[in-house]
Amino acid sequence: MVSELDSRFTIAEAKVREHASWFDKAFVSYFDSLQATQELPRSFSYPQECLAALRELALAGGKRQRVAFFLEASRLVDGVIPGDAERVALSIELLQAHLLIHDDIIDNSPTRRGVQSTLYRFLTRMGGDHARALGLALLTGDIASSLAMDILTGLPRSEDLVGAQLRAHILTCFGQAADLERDERPRTSDALDEVSDFKATRSSAFAPIELGLLLAGADSNDFGATVLKYSRLFGISGQMRDDYLSLFGTASVTGKSNDADIRDGRLTYVLALTLERADARQRALLEYTLGRQDATSEDIARLREVVTETGAADTIARQSIEYAELAAAEASTWRGRWDDDAVAFFEVVPIWGARRML
Amino acid sequence: MVSELDSRFTIAEAKVREHASWFDKAFVSYFDSLQATQELPRSFSYPQECLAALRELALAGGKRQRVAFFLEASRLVDGVIPGDAERVALSIELLQAHLLIHDDIIDNSPTRRGVQSTLYRFLTRMGGDHARALGLALLTGDIASSLAMDILTGLPRSEDLVGAQLRAHILTCFGQAADLERDERPRTSDALDEVSDFKATRSSAFAPIELGLLLAGADSNDFGATVLKYSRLFGISGQMRDDYLSLFGTASVTGKSNDADIRDGRLTYVLALTLERADARQRALLEYTLGRQDATSEDIARLREVVTETGAADTIARQSIEYAELAAAEASTWRGRWDDDAVAFFEVVPIWGARRML
Repeated sequence: MVSELDSRFTIAEAKVREHASWFDKAFVSYFDSLQATQELPRSFSYPQECLAALRELALAGGKRQRVAFFLEASRLVDGVIPGDAERVALSIELLQAHLLIHDDIIDNSPTRRGVQSTLYRFLTRMGGDHARALGLALLTGDIASSLAMDILTGLPRSEDLVGAQLRAHILTCFGQAADLERDERPRTSDALDEVSDFKATRSSAFAPIELGLLLAGADSNDFGATVLKYSRLFGISGQMRDDYLSLFGTASVTGKSNDADIRDGRLTYVLALTLERADARQRALLEYTLGRQDATSEDIARLREVVTETGAADTIARQSIEYAELAAAEASTWRGRWDDDAVAFFEVVPIWGARRML
Repeated sequence: MVSELDSRFTIAEAKVREHASWFDKAFVSYFDSLQATQELPRSFSYPQECLAALRELALAGGKRQRVAFFLEASRLVDGVIPGDAERVALSIELLQAHLLIHDDIIDNSPTRRGVQSTLYRFLTRMGGDHARALGLALLTGDIASSLAMDILTGLPRSEDLVGAQLRAHILTCFGQAADLERDERPRTSDALDEVSDFKATRSSAFAPIELGLLLAGADSNDFGATVLKYSRLFGISGQMRDDYLSLFGTASVTGKSNDADIRDGRLTYVLALTLERADARQRALLEYTLGRQDATSEDIARLREVVTETGAADTIARQSIEYAELAAAEASTWRGRWDDDAVAFFEVVPIWGARRML
């Protein structure tokens, strides 16, 4: 027997998949047209290589959760997706590609979305010439950000839409800067919430919803506060889930080794709380192992035991669900004001996300 | 006795200086206000460090030639600078700061505008931690580009202004990608012109003039072709002059060693033409020395002799002046249609620039 919640998950999942499939077709057409018409220095091949690299990363895709958020938000006001939604969705995913390309330079990450990161793609193509690969990856990211804004010109309310994307971009960059500083010492949960708000919430949740509502003609003075509250709760819930899964998940779910946070010394929600609760013996073990690239699998297993013993893992898993429920409750306040079916999507998605831990 | 041309140079120079001084005050106020009001993750210091680094590089300044181009273009239509010019000028210099910050990452340059490059500033502050310095410099550049666009929102014709800046940015990035490929082999002058058009002309000349005319209410269909022609001629003239000076100028004028192009194997207008004209002996010497970081000062002196012997230096110097004269002639076609005093500025500046070689 399928529970009522399970059937709501199934509906939300089907919507996300349907939106992604619609979007991916549009994204292919966009790149076909861009590569055919973009003014380029024709005596050289690197400019085309930048476009090809952007295309590869952009189309590698993922779940397109931001697109689903945007499309569902765009029909909050009157139940239908406005005609110009396609270009706004393209803008969202181009800006996301920009962020990922530059993020992978910052972290020197070899892979992204199951393909080579743009930096490593160029490293392969440039025979290991790091300076040149770095230059081309950086420029590819820069081009993506301006394409993301450029595609909004000519739309109704284009100025508001561009403004929303620019604010999301600026705040995300500040969040990434904070994230580079985060692991210098253990942080309070307020500080970790702040990183989540800036680094992830703005571009992953708030901006897509804001863009949907703006495109549908809503006034940001009327929705800004509740959408920001929803986005923050959703974002913190998701960050806690990711932090939990990055220690206790399997690579097949998370796409990365569950040793990485430990070896990199990432003071995530789970590891920061573990440190806070550790006794002297546990703290010594944590301090010995965290950030050791050459930690043995025994070291790591012992550290993971400490995380469990202190109850930090359980606490963060529970808090992730609590935050998801608070986000859902915030979305419930939209009932009556906005389209029921679209509101239902925003209610169920946080819970669905948090349950992925279990 | 002062020649008529000299007195026109003096007038243009005074205008550039006056515009720069007006602008630099506005730029300080902008950063004061930005640092006081920008929403930031307050538990961390790196976000503020990004703003401080941007401020330092941005205010280090230079001649603000782009601002002068913009302001003079903004009064082409009716002789007066429109009221909203300040924000557009800020946008131009913020986008320029973005380009310089990222360019210095690509080239791993330690200095810029007489101060540390943003990358090296962070390297110093991060105790040599290259990954972190790279990350913060990259993010600082990213923030600058969105601030450059954001400051245009709310202006009349904001959409046109943002569109002009985005196009300039995208084409400049493609030009930088071409520039990374340029030195793989000697290029034709057409290919070198293409690099100049994309890498420099769009953001340094065309966009500032376009923004000025747009702000003054002109229609880009009416001015696009002639302004692009002017900008290209001016840009090629300037690039030829820079290529000449980077071999035969002094560090006090150019701000860099006149050995750098040789040691880096940069196939500039001058060096590409030298290769084209070289006999077998000269070619062997060129191929031995170009791109050798450890070339002796004797090697370099001999190479510079070859550049002179082939006549390549003289040819490029002469061509730089010819292109400047063609640019001036293009600006002369604006007489009658646009304000005489503003047109005079665009006539004299290319010649003044090319004469800096002599």
